[in-house]
Parts: sequence; C-alpha cells; structure tokens
Amino acid sequence: MINSLYQLVRTIFSKNRIFYLSLVDILGFLPGKIRLYEIAFIHRSASTTCKNGYQINNERLEFLGDAILDAIIAEYLYARFPEEDEGFLTQVRSKIVKRKQLNKIAYNLDISPFLVSNTNAQQSQVNLLGNAFEALIGAIYLDKGYRRTRIFVIRKILRKHLDVDRLARKESDFKSRIIEWAQKNKKEISFVSQEESKPDSHETYFSSNVMLVDEKLGTGTGHSKKDAEQKAAEEALENIPQ
Amino acid sequence: MINSLYQLVRTIFSKNRIFYLSLVDILGFLPGKIRLYEIAFIHRSASTTCKNGYQINNERLEFLGDAILDAIIAEYLYARFPEEDEGFLTQVRSKIVKRKQLNKIAYNLDISPFLVSNTNAQQSQVNLLGNAFEALIGAIYLDKGYRRTRIFVIRKILRKHLDVDRLARKESDFKSRIIEWAQKNKKEISFVSQEESKPDSHETYFSSNVMLVDEKLGTGTGHSKKDAEQKAAEEALENIPQ
Repeated sequence: MINSLYQLVRTIFSKNRIFYLSLVDILGFLPGKIRLYEIAFIHRSASTTCKNGYQINNERLEFLGDAILDAIIAEYLYARFPEEDEGFLTQVRSKIVKRKQLNKIAYNLDISPFLVSNTNAQQSQVNLLGNAFEALIGAIYLDKGYRRTRIFVIRKILRKHLDVDRLARKESDFKSRIIEWAQKNKKEISFVSQEESKPDSHETYFSSNVMLVDEKLGTGTGHSKKDAEQKAAEEALENIPQ
Repeated sequence: MINSLYQLVRTIFSKNRIFYLSLVDILGFLPGKIRLYEIAFIHRSASTTCKNGYQINNERLEFLGDAILDAIIAEYLYARFPEEDEGFLTQVRSKIVKRKQLNKIAYNLDISPFLVSNTNAQQSQVNLLGNAFEALIGAIYLDKGYRRTRIFVIRKILRKHLDVDRLARKESDFKSRIIEWAQKNKKEISFVSQEESKPDSHETYFSSNVMLVDEKLGTGTGHSKKDAEQKAAEEALENIPQ
C-alpha cells in the first residue's frame, strides 16, 4: 500500500509523467519498475549500447513476453474449450498470436505513441507494434508476476480486443459450412468415417469421406472422428462450386 | 495443512498407492488432483471415449504443459544470461525443449512405469515419454499453479537433469573454437566486422568476416557484432580441415 502510494507520488511528479499516466491507463494498474516498460518500447533500430558492449532494446523482453503470452493463452483455451482436442487448441492459439493479430491488438491498445525507433520502412513500422506489445507483456511479467499478467491478458486482450469465439468458430465450421451448402443447394451429402489402425502398432486413427451420392467430394484423416470429418469437409469445400 | 493431511491419508489407503507414492517421490510434493496426473500418462493409443464422444488422453495436457514449460524456461534463461541477446536465448531454449532432450529428461525422471499405451512402435515408445513429461507439467500447473510448477521445473529439471551452462557454451563457442584451431595450427586469423544500414531504413546490422591472411574463411551478418562474428566463425569452421 505504502509502496503503491510512493509509486503514485513518484509518477505524478516525475518528468515523464505523461508516459506513466498513459501506461496506467493502458495497464489498469500502477506499474512498478518503470525502466522495464521504457525498454519494452525501444526498437532495435534505436538501441543504446552499454559499456560492456551489449545493446539495450526490447528484443529480450519480446522473447520473454512471447512465451508468457503463449502460456496464458494456452491455459485460457484449455479451460474455455474442454471438449476440443489439442489440434483445435493449437490452431486457435496460432490465430490469436499471429503477427497480424498482435499488431492489431497493439494498435487498439494505443501503444504506438510510446514507440522509440529509427526505422522508416512501412512494414517494419507495423510489425514493431506487435513486437513491442509482446515486450510489454514481458515487462508486466517481470514487474508484477504471472498471476497479474494473466489477469491483464484475459481482461484487456482476450475479452476486450479479441472475439475468441468467432476465431474458434472459424476454425471448426468446415463441417457446418458444407452441410449448409448442401441444404441450400438441395444436395444430399453424407460423411462416411471409419477407424483404422497402423500395421506396425495398435495406434488407431480415423478417416472420413464427404460423399455426394457416389461422388467423393473430400477426404481427411485425423486422431478423432471429428478431426477427420473437419479435414474431409475442408477439402470438400474446395471442390464445390461457390 | 488439513487438506494436505487428508490427501496423504487418502493416498496411503487408496488402491493406487504405489502410483501415488511414486508420484510424490518424482514431484517432491503431495499431488492434489490425482485424476490429472493419471490422464497425463495416457497415450492417445490408449484413449478412453466419453459419452459425449470426445477422447480422454494426455494430448490436451501436453499442449498446455508445452506452453508452460516454454514460459518457465524463457524466464529462467532471461535471468541467467542477462547480457545475451534474444537470438541466443531462443537457441538455448530450443536445445532444452527439443524432443530428444525431453525424452531423456522423462527417462531420468523415471516416469516410464506409469505410461499407459497400446503402441509398440519403437520410436513412438521413446517420443511418448517426452510427450507424457510435457503433459505432467500441464497437470502440475492445473493442480498447483504457475509458481509451484516453476519451482518444480527449476529444481527438478533445469538444475538436476540438465547442464544449462554446457548447452549455452555449445551455443556460443564458434568464435572460441576457430581461435583455438588457429592457435593449434599456428595460423593467423582475424575478425573484420562493420556496421551497415539498410537503404530503406535507419536500421543497422553488422557483418563480419573471418580472414586467414587474405582468404575469407567465413562470413556472417547479425543484429549485433557478436552475433555476426559467431555466424562467420560457424561458417569458417566448416571450411577448415578438421
């Protein structure tokens, strides 16, 4: 409590108070180790070099933040989709943490005014937003620990700036989409699936075909029937007139 | 405390007490949600199917554990090597978490007696050890939280079953090795490095050549002089008679 008050006073009377106050607004809490947050916004192109020769920029924090973000999202998806397999979870996570999505989140969080860089290339400008966002996660983690970072990511990112359900639906709706297409076009399709096992082991897998009467529209294999059907449906969607 | 006592009593009088007691030995603490640990050892080939059609095996826990392990190791390396750049940290981590290394850790932890699988293929047998180890990390996380999992990974894995310093040295010793080779063979080599900038931005990078008098043995570029020299030395090592 006293520590928080001290930080608040320090923040209000500091030279960089606009940076600090904006940070409070973005983070939703009072940052402690301000230097970490400053480093989080320093692009490689604006590195400063230490006496012992190593460079100060946000790349180390980005390495850390990237891993912390992955873990938090993995846990969130694990709990949110208790009946989906790891293939689904991996796919949805990769959609959330892809560069383009991170750049968008960083843009929405409005962190661009803090960026320090000496690069002009358009593409770099966009990507360094997403990189700085990951570095910011790293800074929050070092400043406040895992639990606090998790709350930040879930409240401020996953709930506010992302529609996880829409991303998940997009991931798993190949079967729905092919059924929808069939209904709309008065076609009769069916999914024919079977369990198979590899000759050299007892390990089983599933294969599935999407049939339009006798014509095979798509085929897929997977660890579960659901997975095989999704892959078959995905292929089928490529083979029908849109 | 009462909760721990209850767990201990339940453990000692349960049917699976050998499994529980071995777990305590491996983990170094009393596990709470035993069902999670049981699932962690179920390979896909021995899945059981739920009423609602989804399969119970360790793949979802493996997805979670993989991410948690990456985060813990990222933080550990970040703190352990404060002067190394993110390229170095990424390389060392990838050496720690590569499949072969995880299989070895799992073997040393002696978790193989718990594995439940129906596969006979030799390679699968080995890999499923590493996969089960990741799933175990996922189970510990869900049972005890991040802090406890972190302590487990650092104490039981990073300090006991891995020589992180050796892995790190292996990563960064191309320059030392080429210098050693030169001294041993009475050759005079030199590193010639320069800072360059891309035409479309102010971003700078470094390039380095390893020269044997006038002959270029190897060349490399990187974000830092050190990085460029390492890459140049790595190439040079390929071009010298061993």
